[in-house]
Amino acid sequence: MREPGGTPIGEEIRALLLDPRHREMAPRTEMLLFAASRAQLVAEVIAPALARGTLVLCDRFVDASLAYQGVGRGLGVDVVRAVNAAATDGLAPDLTLLLDVEPAVGLRRARAAPAGWHGGDRLERETLAFHEQVREGFLALARNEPHRIVTIDARGSVAGVHQAITQAVDGFLRRRRQGP
Amino acid sequence: MREPGGTPIGEEIRALLLDPRHREMAPRTEMLLFAASRAQLVAEVIAPALARGTLVLCDRFVDASLAYQGVGRGLGVDVVRAVNAAATDGLAPDLTLLLDVEPAVGLRRARAAPAGWHGGDRLERETLAFHEQVREGFLALARNEPHRIVTIDARGSVAGVHQAITQAVDGFLRRRRQGP
Repeated sequence: MREPGGTPIGEEIRALLLDPRHREMAPRTEMLLFAASRAQLVAEVIAPALARGTLVLCDRFVDASLAYQGVGRGLGVDVVRAVNAAATDGLAPDLTLLLDVEPAVGLRRARAAPAGWHGGDRLERETLAFHEQVREGFLALARNEPHRIVTIDARGSVAGVHQAITQAVDGFLRRRRQGP
Repeated sequence: MREPGGTPIGEEIRALLLDPRHREMAPRTEMLLFAASRAQLVAEVIAPALARGTLVLCDRFVDASLAYQGVGRGLGVDVVRAVNAAATDGLAPDLTLLLDVEPAVGLRRARAAPAGWHGGDRLERETLAFHEQVREGFLALARNEPHRIVTIDARGSVAGVHQAITQAVDGFLRRRRQGP
């Protein structure tokens, strides 16, 4: 589960979260540590950028916790949503791109990625069944919020996925310029 | 702000929280890290002990976050309560003892304590005004829940405070044995 640490405190929390030695970490602890890292990212990086009028791109946000901790860990989407609303002070993305692929394929790609991109971390080491549940979680979120979450078929080539992303972002920005 | 780490993960979170170098830590991050440490303590130590029928004594719990982060940091008691309900899965103490003393006296005592007991940590280094607000937060909680929270005047001698604590605990246990 990648999320930009972005801040020194965020990086320390992330290191704690992903340390493969921490097998005894409780699901609620995991949920709260991701939320803490996100709170720091919002306070230090995202909120100031938005205040300056900057467009913010973010690799994973609250939806990732809804899928990983809410569905994958079985804590329930509602409790994870409440905690993350407190973490982000209600901040939510305007557009979310869900790059969807079968977990078996995704994990194979992660293992083939350049060193440093993935680390065999505590979440990547989870079972395939866990990742299947997380995927179902993401797809359910996309079904519930089709206007915000665009699901992109990520089975294809890098160029194909890139094109689908560009189309989704262009379409969003065009609608946005035209106003609500 | 002392809370039993109790677990290796809890100790790592606590070290992160109290590191005086982390001046830029956002209030919401602080709230969520305390909640994460508490979630781990509940899952690893408190819930199993209660399941065995053990009486659990705890040095600070959710009330401390309501006072420090809710009132002291100004996040509001409601948001801190919601996050901590998620952290503890709703677990709450039957009896809480609030040892009350003017912050100026409390801080003087902390500084005179044996090394290792206090560390000049990030929260202890806060202004007197901050600690005054935290105290008001604790006293307001006690006013709202007089049956659960017993306020003990901690200005007196160690022996006097000890006697007041013993009385409060004995009284609670006697009422408990008699049933509701």
